[in-house]
Amino acid sequence: MSERDTFDRVFLGSERIDALPGDARGFAYGDGLFETMRVHRGLVPWWTQHVTRLVRGASHLSMPLPDPAQLEREARALFDDDGDGVLKLIVSRGGGGRGYTPHPDAPPLWRVSRHALPAPLRPGGLVLRWCDLRLASQPALAGIKHCNRLEQVLARAEWNDPAIDEGLLRSSDGDLVCATAANVFVLHGDRWSTPSLEDCGVAGVCRAWVLAETGAIETRIAPEALQTADAVLLCNAVRGILPVARLEGRTWALHPAVADLRARLARAHPGFAVDQEVA
Amino acid sequence: MSERDTFDRVFLGSERIDALPGDARGFAYGDGLFETMRVHRGLVPWWTQHVTRLVRGASHLSMPLPDPAQLEREARALFDDDGDGVLKLIVSRGGGGRGYTPHPDAPPLWRVSRHALPAPLRPGGLVLRWCDLRLASQPALAGIKHCNRLEQVLARAEWNDPAIDEGLLRSSDGDLVCATAANVFVLHGDRWSTPSLEDCGVAGVCRAWVLAETGAIETRIAPEALQTADAVLLCNAVRGILPVARLEGRTWALHPAVADLRARLARAHPGFAVDQEVA
Repeated sequence: MSERDTFDRVFLGSERIDALPGDARGFAYGDGLFETMRVHRGLVPWWTQHVTRLVRGASHLSMPLPDPAQLEREARALFDDDGDGVLKLIVSRGGGGRGYTPHPDAPPLWRVSRHALPAPLRPGGLVLRWCDLRLASQPALAGIKHCNRLEQVLARAEWNDPAIDEGLLRSSDGDLVCATAANVFVLHGDRWSTPSLEDCGVAGVCRAWVLAETGAIETRIAPEALQTADAVLLCNAVRGILPVARLEGRTWALHPAVADLRARLARAHPGFAVDQEVA
Repeated sequence: MSERDTFDRVFLGSERIDALPGDARGFAYGDGLFETMRVHRGLVPWWTQHVTRLVRGASHLSMPLPDPAQLEREARALFDDDGDGVLKLIVSRGGGGRGYTPHPDAPPLWRVSRHALPAPLRPGGLVLRWCDLRLASQPALAGIKHCNRLEQVLARAEWNDPAIDEGLLRSSDGDLVCATAANVFVLHGDRWSTPSLEDCGVAGVCRAWVLAETGAIETRIAPEALQTADAVLLCNAVRGILPVARLEGRTWALHPAVADLRARLARAHPGFAVDQEVA
């Protein structure tokens, strides 16, 4: 347990090791995948969905994965006090010599870590801004939760005003894509929509839950569509569904459809109950 | 010294440490920069240029750098046998909690490593292919030698035929940009050109040398322009200037202008003399 209230364990293949080796391709190239998961009473409500996304990403990058039974065992071991918190998993391609050529036989280098829950949701909902940075269009990586995240780092560094909770990102075409660490849904009348992720963005686990619950359409959304929206929400697998209260000049009161979705999520996964709420 | 003939040293700020800490932002997000340098008789011919590029990249990413005197001292220490080889430097933003927000006070996490020279140049010159992967347009990161390199990893994984030395990459618009680990110059008559790097690609140190020597223009280059080229060369700071012998169906004999450039580089930096040649 470090001074930062984080426990972590690092593995090379099935073997636990003390620290990341210097030749880690994750360090050199961001050649890895990650999952950030909410843990409630020692369990991850969306474990299967996280692992499924991980398997899909690894297949896309032709990257070997740890044994899934060991992965689950080690993840659980971090929360064997049945506590609440955040579980982060990084799986990276095993090391090897200098250069981009992957070494297909290298065992994966992976890390599980336990973190505290984030701060509670601001009363009324999130305050957002628009980021200047535009997300590049890269269909070969779109949707995947990979470790090439300099765009998000740059976007998050655009503000340090604690009165702002999150920043919305646009594609190079100018369309809405996501927040720096959340997906976004927009309500017009009774119709939910969310940006399609063919060119950029991450296919979030909570996004999939909201899609299934609302029948939202995946489409191009112009920034102007938020001005006329009846409600906007952000979501991710750690914080669940978060109402948006303000985006620059535009404000929203909590919409019944958002409150209803939040209640439905809390029934499905008690960790997301409002009395457990985190933002 | 590992089994892979690599020496390395890792530092957090000014302090040498044994291995990369698990919370390294370089591992989580590829939040770092790198330089790959040719060393000849214990010295890096383009040290100043590499450090200058590093400083520019760090400024762009608002990332603190190690003390330059210590950096140079530690790099030299890896080659205190006055040997030849490759020096790789990775400087990443210091760790901190989970999440994209950079911690401006965290000291940089950095690694210097020594590697063997790559294999000699194939007689006649390089054999190239076109890669399918298109480089995304991201002006906020273009030119910088940062550690978000999944595009290059994917592109290099497109072939494993040892008869092919390198792959050429196109932008999302279809223009020539670079090879997976080299810049590219194209000769028509007595006019050299090289792709402009406003949207993607890395501003190579050897590229800058070739630009200054040839007065090449930086411009958009369509793939078809290679069919009519009198010569094509790749270059990087490890291998110097490399003539291209074949690109799929098109072949080139060694052009006098390429031979002349190689001789000029060898006079400027004896490590790149033909009898030292590596590819």
